[in-house]
Amino acid sequence: MNDFNVIGKSVQKKDGIPKVTGKALFARDIKFESMLYAKVLRSKVAHALLKRVDTSKAEKLPGVAAVLTSKDIPGSNRIGIIMKDEPVLVDDKIRRYGDALAVVAAETEEIAEEALNLIEVEYDELPLVTNVYEALKEDSPKVHGDTNLLTTRTLIKGDVDEAFKKCDVIVEKIYKTNYYAHMFIEPEAGVSKYENGLLTIWASTQNPHFDRGEVARVLGLPQSKVRVVQAETGGGFGGKLDISTQCFLGLLTYHTKKPVKLAYTREESMEVSSKRHPHIMKYKTGADKNGKLIAMEAEFIEDSGAYASYAPAVITRAVVHSTGPYEIPNVRVRASMVYTNNPMAGAFRGFGVPQVSIAHEQQMDMLAEKLNMIPYDIRIINALRVGSYTCTMQKLEDSIGVVETLEKAREKAEEVILNSTCELSSRKRRGVGIGCMWYGIGNTGLPNPASAFLEMHKDGSVTVMAGCADIGQGSNTVMCQIVAETLGVNYEEVNIISADTGSTPDGGATSASRQTYISGNACKKAAEMAKESLMQVAEELLNSPKEDIILKNKRAYVKGHEDNNVSLQEILSRCAAKGIMIVGSGYFNPNTTGLDPHTMQGVPFATYAFATHFIEVEVDIYTGEVKVLKVIAAHDVGKAINRKMVEGQIEGGCLMGMGLGILENLQVENAKMKTLNFSNYLIYTAKDIPEIYPIIVESEESTGPFGAKGVGEPALIPVAPAILNAVHNAIGVRFTEIPLTLEKVVEGLNNKFN
Amino acid sequence: MNDFNVIGKSVQKKDGIPKVTGKALFARDIKFESMLYAKVLRSKVAHALLKRVDTSKAEKLPGVAAVLTSKDIPGSNRIGIIMKDEPVLVDDKIRRYGDALAVVAAETEEIAEEALNLIEVEYDELPLVTNVYEALKEDSPKVHGDTNLLTTRTLIKGDVDEAFKKCDVIVEKIYKTNYYAHMFIEPEAGVSKYENGLLTIWASTQNPHFDRGEVARVLGLPQSKVRVVQAETGGGFGGKLDISTQCFLGLLTYHTKKPVKLAYTREESMEVSSKRHPHIMKYKTGADKNGKLIAMEAEFIEDSGAYASYAPAVITRAVVHSTGPYEIPNVRVRASMVYTNNPMAGAFRGFGVPQVSIAHEQQMDMLAEKLNMIPYDIRIINALRVGSYTCTMQKLEDSIGVVETLEKAREKAEEVILNSTCELSSRKRRGVGIGCMWYGIGNTGLPNPASAFLEMHKDGSVTVMAGCADIGQGSNTVMCQIVAETLGVNYEEVNIISADTGSTPDGGATSASRQTYISGNACKKAAEMAKESLMQVAEELLNSPKEDIILKNKRAYVKGHEDNNVSLQEILSRCAAKGIMIVGSGYFNPNTTGLDPHTMQGVPFATYAFATHFIEVEVDIYTGEVKVLKVIAAHDVGKAINRKMVEGQIEGGCLMGMGLGILENLQVENAKMKTLNFSNYLIYTAKDIPEIYPIIVESEESTGPFGAKGVGEPALIPVAPAILNAVHNAIGVRFTEIPLTLEKVVEGLNNKFN
Repeated sequence: MNDFNVIGKSVQKKDGIPKVTGKALFARDIKFESMLYAKVLRSKVAHALLKRVDTSKAEKLPGVAAVLTSKDIPGSNRIGIIMKDEPVLVDDKIRRYGDALAVVAAETEEIAEEALNLIEVEYDELPLVTNVYEALKEDSPKVHGDTNLLTTRTLIKGDVDEAFKKCDVIVEKIYKTNYYAHMFIEPEAGVSKYENGLLTIWASTQNPHFDRGEVARVLGLPQSKVRVVQAETGGGFGGKLDISTQCFLGLLTYHTKKPVKLAYTREESMEVSSKRHPHIMKYKTGADKNGKLIAMEAEFIEDSGAYASYAPAVITRAVVHSTGPYEIPNVRVRASMVYTNNPMAGAFRGFGVPQVSIAHEQQMDMLAEKLNMIPYDIRIINALRVGSYTCTMQKLEDSIGVVETLEKAREKAEEVILNSTCELSSRKRRGVGIGCMWYGIGNTGLPNPASAFLEMHKDGSVTVMAGCADIGQGSNTVMCQIVAETLGVNYEEVNIISADTGSTPDGGATSASRQTYISGNACKKAAEMAKESLMQVAEELLNSPKEDIILKNKRAYVKGHEDNNVSLQEILSRCAAKGIMIVGSGYFNPNTTGLDPHTMQGVPFATYAFATHFIEVEVDIYTGEVKVLKVIAAHDVGKAINRKMVEGQIEGGCLMGMGLGILENLQVENAKMKTLNFSNYLIYTAKDIPEIYPIIVESEESTGPFGAKGVGEPALIPVAPAILNAVHNAIGVRFTEIPLTLEKVVEGLNNKFN
Repeated sequence: MNDFNVIGKSVQKKDGIPKVTGKALFARDIKFESMLYAKVLRSKVAHALLKRVDTSKAEKLPGVAAVLTSKDIPGSNRIGIIMKDEPVLVDDKIRRYGDALAVVAAETEEIAEEALNLIEVEYDELPLVTNVYEALKEDSPKVHGDTNLLTTRTLIKGDVDEAFKKCDVIVEKIYKTNYYAHMFIEPEAGVSKYENGLLTIWASTQNPHFDRGEVARVLGLPQSKVRVVQAETGGGFGGKLDISTQCFLGLLTYHTKKPVKLAYTREESMEVSSKRHPHIMKYKTGADKNGKLIAMEAEFIEDSGAYASYAPAVITRAVVHSTGPYEIPNVRVRASMVYTNNPMAGAFRGFGVPQVSIAHEQQMDMLAEKLNMIPYDIRIINALRVGSYTCTMQKLEDSIGVVETLEKAREKAEEVILNSTCELSSRKRRGVGIGCMWYGIGNTGLPNPASAFLEMHKDGSVTVMAGCADIGQGSNTVMCQIVAETLGVNYEEVNIISADTGSTPDGGATSASRQTYISGNACKKAAEMAKESLMQVAEELLNSPKEDIILKNKRAYVKGHEDNNVSLQEILSRCAAKGIMIVGSGYFNPNTTGLDPHTMQGVPFATYAFATHFIEVEVDIYTGEVKVLKVIAAHDVGKAINRKMVEGQIEGGCLMGMGLGILENLQVENAKMKTLNFSNYLIYTAKDIPEIYPIIVESEESTGPFGAKGVGEPALIPVAPAILNAVHNAIGVRFTEIPLTLEKVVEGLNNKFN
């Protein structure tokens, strides 16, 4: 059964060679004849009524081809993935620093820049809203409409009030998380072109099909007249899910009919791309004397900044994951998402789950401490298992590997950490902490299908067309592996065309760790439809029913009678002689239900990934520096389609998680971001990688392609909580805010010892 | 039933605006950075053993990037659509003028040209084979292997020898046709590029999927690693079915890894592209005294030139169409296809049928004359009808409109020709002639499927992906009309991506008038699969079974209860809420059988087009000039998907048919073509268009998309025979050779009167 040829193998990434040799074409690299260069005029105030944008002087500057404002938008001037609350170009009110007021296309970037200076803007400033509590007061200035309360969520399972009465131990704590920036290496960029009645945009993006819809709406065109092609994308992490250059490019090419390029500077990207939602989370968790969890109550307040972006998805996901991967019979969570004039928050690897994991994992450790248990045991006791009910009352039935990740991680930790014999100077203290996580694959309680087309060519090689955007995470490779295995052909002979709305069907967003599971299933279904045609002929040639026939190594074999076989080439020749073509299409939508609007009970995800990290840290008690020494990262990914790529995701996730926990420190003052580039927003780089021990747990998911689930975001999530628990283990101080800067550590130590 | 919204309407051609505004990108217009320019070294002798090609001097020329010969071919050095008998670069023997010996890529076209002069070629000349009868003699030099007999065909229906004994009248004649050139306006061109492990070639082509297979074989790559995209194609008419620039480009980019452009000159194109097969046809036809055909015997000898190209398809098609659209109970045809050192013959609008129509249509007129019947009556008596048996013993059951084309054409002729009252000077004589034809749609007795993918977007607009190459004939428009009608959406909102092997599935060749019927059906099937998803939801919303629901004007209606309806947008919203995607794929293969190898009996085509032309000519008996005055062209095309485009095909076909009959005069001397451009190979142009009266007969084909068959080649076929019959009617001289040059007419008149 598990005797795979391609699945589970660390085949070479499809984009590996082009990227390491510098041949891959990013949007910045794309050039067309007579191409114009665009620049965006952005607001230098955060809240104001826009009175006038006078472009007349800019228009007269030689070399300027177009200066557009909101009045030049032929269709809708409101965009957004969930709520259409963001203007392409401001028409009434400025709501944040960096809001776009006008866009220029000129013969050179320099002329475009110069033209920006010639645009006159007049506005009336309004008082700022920068604090979520202030924002919710009745007399607060409003960012949109008549309330700053963007949305709320309430989850109710069981009777929390009664349950707390039965608890032997209860811990309560307030946790806070900051803004974070994705810091993808390639700032947003795109190129547009108009040809044969079709407007095409090449963009650095995670969701070309969404982009296509938005551009079409903004231009008032049918979607079939707009083509968005994902250019090679230098990272995204959620930050390239919102519209960036796409609508500006669409507008400029719509009006000039010329090719246009728009490439953001790092500072521009930093200012306007979405950030991780800052959370304030009040947690109360109770257990019986044996450590069995009985009740949990939580209250979240989250800052969406000036626009909604992915806020409704982030708040939902945060709430349904708020318990961590544990069964708690009574749960009540209330969450509020607030508009402010702060930087826009949005999708960021983990969608709110990294935030809540800071809380639930420390709650677990504190309960264990009170009960005099070890952190491992309290987790094992409460971990979700087959038959458990989640906080949304979803009964778990398949592929629940959290216990196995705990066991495997502990085993490895005993080998590489607990026996660690390193000498420590007195100023350096070491500690070990655990972080567990669960993560629902795909959108939360919403349909989110993906589709694919496929053709096998006359020589048995295959082209698969999938909407799914590979932003470096390797989905192109995974899709080709799935197709190769399904059709019994070589991985190398499968080519993929992806993320081109003109030739690939919708794959949905590359987000929510969904593409392996969802687009993977879509590719598998398309391959299975094509396989049906092959089987028609194989049945004849092998004189056996298709149920007994397997395709492998470019041959068809009769199961149990492997000497009865025929080459794929022979099957294809017979197909050709009969006029049978080997084509297929398919889509897959995970089996979920909507959540009850009052209690959030339901089936938000068809499947979940699980993980346990054991992390060893060293804390310098003089400087407050926290250094991660070792990470044991056990991940239940279902089936690992490509082991090396799964390990790569885990390693990358660890580094980003360390940044979240310790280093990355975004500064916002009066709604204005102060840290706009790598010189003041530090991230960990290759030289900071600790010893990482990835462990792949394969609790195969019956609905997944060959049992696969996902790993993209999970890799990040358990890192910061494990670090916080390890720091507590090292120095006995519990920190409830991230990032754990030098100052915070020193302050924590001072509070403890003074 | 026939209440169509889009089918039958003369909607605007998808490529109309880009072409008339000069925006359409032909391969010559495509540019890439660091692009090299290629030139081909071609043989200046027609038959020789190649001894040596020394490229060393050429390689040293500054600016030269590559000089390749046959030894640089990593895969196979033999190509060809049916028989792999043509070298990409000659490795053993030169077989015709223009055979490619080496190919150069350099920084400029001029350098490439200069490099050609530095290549030293050594060869031993061989005696030429230029006459088909000489070629078949045992002691003739051989072009390939040990015989010049490329292939033969024998068709036997009934007992011809016995049947002739029963005939009251018999006519016998030998007919000859010349070479013809396609004279597409755009000579062959292509551009290649290597990126991300994928070799992409943009080429002026009629069959990108075939090209892809050939390039992959020549380079020894899997087909999925080669992408051939049809660039806008400035005409083809069969002449862009063979490989031209594709393999040279593939080789050069394979070796240099750089983009390369290769654009043929007109003379180069003329020298190496395929020509119409010259036929010598001996016909004997017998009828009873009532004009009922009893027996026909024919013998064809056809010159394929140096390579096979489409020869086996042309000879087969010529034989199965040899009777014309008439039922003849006893038929025997023998045909031979011969290799010579003459220019390579291949596919050309009509595939041998224009040749045989010259014969069978004059035979009909001569029989009528002997029987003192009018040409119209003998055709009506013998025309194929439902229930008739063709010469391959196929029983015709559906969509047989030849009688209707005769009737409609006559009706129109009586209105516009027979009442013609124009004054004639004594030197000008007028006559009217009839030409009838039948034409099997698709490849003859061979599977020739086509496929398509389709996606409906969230706003109801649609993208269809079909392999089918639009070379100006309008297939992109037709496919979009078929899709729009099937899904009840606007034509304008359907976009097509076609003829790109990287993103569209195989559509087979744009030849054999097959795309409307075959790719049209494939697109319809893909649309129907997508429609199933819409219907799932429409059934629910309308509370009616899908059989009762029709999609129209972006709404779904319950048949007979049209007030019960729902908008497509509502259906799509519901689909989105359920995670249902509107995607589809499909392929179609016409229902044919292989032909018996000894008798050619079988079902070569699933459906046939029919036509009748009435043509009025004026012959200047002093100069021999034949002028076509009026053409009544009645075509049974099944259902006309786009009336204006069908009329356009008819008009274009008339002009090309006039060229075939009268003007185009290709000169070959000792295997060398003397007429290499428009200054000595004349064609008719817009200013020569006579009065043309297209009549569309819609004898709907039940297996066709909305009843459609095809019209591409049929439009040409009846023209020349009708002209020859008209000339006979005008001056009483029967001509058996085309083109009917001034000299031939004068000679014919001289023979008659002297």
